[in-house]
Amino acid sequence: MVATDNVYKTPEEATFNLALYLKQRQKLCDTALDQAIPIIYPEKIYEAMRYSLLAGGKRVRPILCLATCEMFGGTIEMAMPTACAVEMIHTMSLIHDDLPAMDNDDYRRGKLTNHKVYGDDVAILAGDGLLALAFEFVATQTPQIVDRSRVLQVVARLGRALGAAGLVGGQVVDLESEGKSDISLETLNFIHRHKTAALLEACVVCGGILAGASSEDVQRLTRYAQNIGLAFQIIDDILDVTATQEQLGKTAGKDQRAKKVTYPSLWGLEESRLKAQELVKAACAELEPFKERAEPMVAIAHFITSRNH
Amino acid sequence: MVATDNVYKTPEEATFNLALYLKQRQKLCDTALDQAIPIIYPEKIYEAMRYSLLAGGKRVRPILCLATCEMFGGTIEMAMPTACAVEMIHTMSLIHDDLPAMDNDDYRRGKLTNHKVYGDDVAILAGDGLLALAFEFVATQTPQIVDRSRVLQVVARLGRALGAAGLVGGQVVDLESEGKSDISLETLNFIHRHKTAALLEACVVCGGILAGASSEDVQRLTRYAQNIGLAFQIIDDILDVTATQEQLGKTAGKDQRAKKVTYPSLWGLEESRLKAQELVKAACAELEPFKERAEPMVAIAHFITSRNH
Repeated sequence: MVATDNVYKTPEEATFNLALYLKQRQKLCDTALDQAIPIIYPEKIYEAMRYSLLAGGKRVRPILCLATCEMFGGTIEMAMPTACAVEMIHTMSLIHDDLPAMDNDDYRRGKLTNHKVYGDDVAILAGDGLLALAFEFVATQTPQIVDRSRVLQVVARLGRALGAAGLVGGQVVDLESEGKSDISLETLNFIHRHKTAALLEACVVCGGILAGASSEDVQRLTRYAQNIGLAFQIIDDILDVTATQEQLGKTAGKDQRAKKVTYPSLWGLEESRLKAQELVKAACAELEPFKERAEPMVAIAHFITSRNH
Repeated sequence: MVATDNVYKTPEEATFNLALYLKQRQKLCDTALDQAIPIIYPEKIYEAMRYSLLAGGKRVRPILCLATCEMFGGTIEMAMPTACAVEMIHTMSLIHDDLPAMDNDDYRRGKLTNHKVYGDDVAILAGDGLLALAFEFVATQTPQIVDRSRVLQVVARLGRALGAAGLVGGQVVDLESEGKSDISLETLNFIHRHKTAALLEACVVCGGILAGASSEDVQRLTRYAQNIGLAFQIIDDILDVTATQEQLGKTAGKDQRAKKVTYPSLWGLEESRLKAQELVKAACAELEPFKERAEPMVAIAHFITSRNH
């Protein structure tokens, strides 16, 4: 059980089982993602898209999207196409980031990276294909019960989170910072606000929009996401120092070898851990108005700082 | 003046000046595309996106999108965000196709390709950024006068035209066919229906949808686009044999050197020219119900087979 002091709990909810919740949601997401991409001619591209999409991620992003939609009284069905889309976008960014022309990684989630299996050309196209499908999927699969203008807002948010004002912009600054040991905290924050927090923000904001969240609610969700996004990245940096390749499913100790500026390199491990905890606390404070309905999202925020892979 | 025998013309319209029409529309599109991407931090990614997007293409795709919208009584303003989006998607596909991991081209539209100027990493990201912006732009910039469900249909069509069922799928089969001299006409058609016709189809169908075209109209537009798409590709193949690098603005004679199966290699030059003309005629026949309103689109269809670059 996760400590959620600020949230009033009924006896029933006090037994909220995050591990079970995540397991059930992950299964729902895995099933929806599996069904989203059939294998037809030309098989290779669909197989390459499925290879990375179904490589067994924790599905934190889609689960957050579903949880936010439900927090505002929406259903899982309303948010599932958007939840699948954020995982497609996330997977696409991993495939492209892993390419030899970018971070040149051979392993991801404990498996060979996409280009190591299918070649650079197909990996680039698999990323493009996942990205295209993400938008098509939201537009065609979101139930008609959801107002079309809300769905269009989701499309706009996903586009922004992915583009030069989001993931792409963060990755460009990250590439530019490579091998430089004098990266400022401001630049480091820019990279992670764009590479990590922007998509997490889109997940929770889109989940809220689909269920009719007010603009004030959207502000709260934005702050929640920015805080857990930064916490998520700090923990990632810490794990790169402390965890093994086996635990991570990807190459460990990479940052240090690349002399990359990270939060632990700026603040030290202990200070970084404290900072991540503070961010999670601030994130949860944003959800207080939603009382017990926020329990899954509060628990997920705490989960982020307690994970070891 | 272009021959448009099947279309009744008033004396005024008989003077329809395609060259002037294309020039004016191209300018409108160039201005809109220029304004779509400001240069902000991190400058390099916005510059890379602008470098290829504003490299002076003929803007055939966006012009077709605007023309179709107008044919159904819509305005240029209604279709301009979608017109910009199709050009962004087209440009993104060129940037990624030109990469060393794909077709490895150094020149495009008479200029160095994106990766030759900005590096492979930024070129991949510039493509991703254009793609994300395409969807964001349609969702946020289409005037409110257009029903949101129509805008969402446009998003779905663009996603499909770009993804594994469109551009991406066509490029995968094209890559698989490289160096093989026994490619069937069926495979060649698959490649070009997906690499070329799918996006042209999205241009005209989306232009129609935005203006409220019926599903029967959409069928006609689809057949028009598939025919001119194939004609366009046949002419491209012919020009690769007959035109100079200076005329094309890209490497000429590439297909032959790569022993690539093309329409001229299957049918010969003369037969290929005849086939392209037949396809354009069939395309124009689809527009007969729209009478004089179809004149620009009829003229554009003929322009495709008469171009020399």
